[in-house]
Amino acid sequence: MAIITLTTDFGLKDPSTGAVKGAILSELESANIVDISHDVSPFHITEAAYIIKNSYSSFPKGSIHLIGVDSEITPENKHIAIQLDDHFFICANNGIMSLIASEIKPQKIVEINIHDAVETNFPVLDVFVKVACHIARGGTLEVIGKSIPTIKQIKKFNPFINDSQDQIIGHVMYIDNYGNVVTNVSRKLFENVGKGRAFTLNARSTAFTTIHESYSHAIDFDSPKEQRVEEGKKLAIFNASNYIEIAIYKSNPNTVGSASTLFGLKLMDTINIKFTS
Amino acid sequence: MAIITLTTDFGLKDPSTGAVKGAILSELESANIVDISHDVSPFHITEAAYIIKNSYSSFPKGSIHLIGVDSEITPENKHIAIQLDDHFFICANNGIMSLIASEIKPQKIVEINIHDAVETNFPVLDVFVKVACHIARGGTLEVIGKSIPTIKQIKKFNPFINDSQDQIIGHVMYIDNYGNVVTNVSRKLFENVGKGRAFTLNARSTAFTTIHESYSHAIDFDSPKEQRVEEGKKLAIFNASNYIEIAIYKSNPNTVGSASTLFGLKLMDTINIKFTS
Amino acid sequence: MAIITLTTDFGLKDPSTGAVKGAILSELESANIVDISHDVSPFHITEAAYIIKNSYSSFPKGSIHLIGVDSEITPENKHIAIQLDDHFFICANNGIMSLIASEIKPQKIVEINIHDAVETNFPVLDVFVKVACHIARGGTLEVIGKSIPTIKQIKKFNPFINDSQDQIIGHVMYIDNYGNVVTNVSRKLFENVGKGRAFTLNARSTAFTTIHESYSHAIDFDSPKEQRVEEGKKLAIFNASNYIEIAIYKSNPNTVGSASTLFGLKLMDTINIKFTS
Repeated sequence: MAIITLTTDFGLKDPSTGAVKGAILSELESANIVDISHDVSPFHITEAAYIIKNSYSSFPKGSIHLIGVDSEITPENKHIAIQLDDHFFICANNGIMSLIASEIKPQKIVEINIHDAVETNFPVLDVFVKVACHIARGGTLEVIGKSIPTIKQIKKFNPFINDSQDQIIGHVMYIDNYGNVVTNVSRKLFENVGKGRAFTLNARSTAFTTIHESYSHAIDFDSPKEQRVEEGKKLAIFNASNYIEIAIYKSNPNTVGSASTLFGLKLMDTINIKFTS
Repeated sequence: MAIITLTTDFGLKDPSTGAVKGAILSELESANIVDISHDVSPFHITEAAYIIKNSYSSFPKGSIHLIGVDSEITPENKHIAIQLDDHFFICANNGIMSLIASEIKPQKIVEINIHDAVETNFPVLDVFVKVACHIARGGTLEVIGKSIPTIKQIKKFNPFINDSQDQIIGHVMYIDNYGNVVTNVSRKLFENVGKGRAFTLNARSTAFTTIHESYSHAIDFDSPKEQRVEEGKKLAIFNASNYIEIAIYKSNPNTVGSASTLFGLKLMDTINIKFTS
Repeated sequence: MAIITLTTDFGLKDPSTGAVKGAILSELESANIVDISHDVSPFHITEAAYIIKNSYSSFPKGSIHLIGVDSEITPENKHIAIQLDDHFFICANNGIMSLIASEIKPQKIVEINIHDAVETNFPVLDVFVKVACHIARGGTLEVIGKSIPTIKQIKKFNPFINDSQDQIIGHVMYIDNYGNVVTNVSRKLFENVGKGRAFTLNARSTAFTTIHESYSHAIDFDSPKEQRVEEGKKLAIFNASNYIEIAIYKSNPNTVGSASTLFGLKLMDTINIKFTS
């Protein structure tokens, strides 16, 4: 049973998501359709990339991931299908895949050319579903597109490392459901540059000198419960996706407040890590 | 594998949606349950009708569509099951189906009569699920209801056309996830009345003289990128459902603003199309 | 086809929910994954308990319910798997299950001990999925945990009954999608204490002397439609889960207002029922 996942900015109210699911089932009755997210901010390709990058690999090899964000076809925004890490991705060539594929080389890239003369306002329904079902039935990418060597790159989202290799300037790339702030500094980059040195991470007016392995690592469970600082405690951790995250312990945007609001950090705000030599 | 879709105003937090899914699976283990939307505004039958009308036909013939909006049974609100366009719909006879069936004559209409003496506060769970599973198992509508000739009509939502056939007064019937404003003027009505004549569409203080075939049609991709007006550009298009939509190119309610907020258009506000003779 | 339900506070935007679904399908391709809710307020175990308690029993016996709320493992928060009412539940031992199991004795309780040395920031993905798939394949609880006699209790959420048995003091335990206010006073408790006596239910400044069997019971459908008070009418009912609910007829938080806002009732606010002797 082929798995087809959906990641879109359609929201969950409009008819769009239902229409896409219906169209898949009309083509392929046995498809196993799985929602990854429909709440990507409108046209927000970095959010979409973060969400897919940190979920797709949990799915079985061969899964087909349909990405409906900024997907209207224009002279500057073609449709592509990509095989990468033995998964398939169908989306617009708008840079999303360069963020997902930043560390893994695609096995195959095609520019989709099954569009007929008819204009469409809903390419996910009219084009992506057909491509997904073609792949699900075992069809090859060459049948639905022409091979292209590269995809559109977005580079500006990489962290900056200074010449003396003792500073990383990153930025906020995602704010999660708890209001915690995910930076674009990966554990790997942090360890490669830091080489075990002491450091100070500055996020606006707050400084951290430890990055915890988990939320609860920041809590001293040996001390009596009533003396501990727990809810609302500020901390930096490597999150489940192995990025540095600025968090509030048991953060709840509606009660104790969230990292995003408490630190005043918004998307694309910078954070600074200085290693002591 | 029978497809049963759900469209409700239950939201996605409460136990209601989960309970309905569990009840379907308890009756029919192999049911393929597909969410269309659970975010219909409470008791909003025109929103529900718009969402279903523009998604149901993507599903395979024979699909069963359960509509849980304003479904409490009262002396004035009976339950019905309808076969239309080779699909099945189960809902309250509150006018929703007259909006969905405005252009297609139902094949069969029954008033559901399987309610037993026990009162229910949750008819979708206690009645609609039973009817859906009955149909999914191949049962006929006559077994679960008595045939009735007509359904409750809601007419006030049709556009007005003046006697001299040179003006259409429509209204906003839906505001989508991007804040774009969908009117109740269909492409078919527009073309039938307009007969190719020039026109001016007025939506509050903004006037349009072109209705584009797609969002990107409004952009001049031959001009240099830095000279183009793109994000935030106001436009009128025929949307994916073939209604006239007042839109903002790459609209994002949180950044460039949405059509709804920028034009100040709310649900039921009128728009006016004047053809030049 | 094993049914695995998900109830979490992950929200529907983040990659977490998709990652969990992918991991389940990677372990057990035929799993039927059903969302109950991902919109539990962050770390809100009483909300999670209310949602699961009022939905799980609709599912077939043998269903596996995974609860991802406040699930990080700490010295004070172990992971458990429970068989209860012929259903399986996997969650942290943080008191959620004591609320769900308040009236039904668990058949089996184990503390999960398959955690290896590696720390995890995402126990639902790394631990709960493995346990769920083990159970789905027919495995016993003893293989993945050691039997324990009791679970952590949360008692403070029970209603108070006075010594003379003529008063119940309850509180608001849930506010639903329509803004209606669900109290923790069950029909059973109300009837056991009240024994058919007259009563006054006070919720802030509003008093009720009737608890209706359904929303529409509060409306006099024999009177002419234009003379009736319908939308916006205040009422108390036994809701679909058999708890006393303070409601607004056809409540819509965006239009007529909701019970929560109109009565000024928030979570944990008290309500008082006084029986006349």
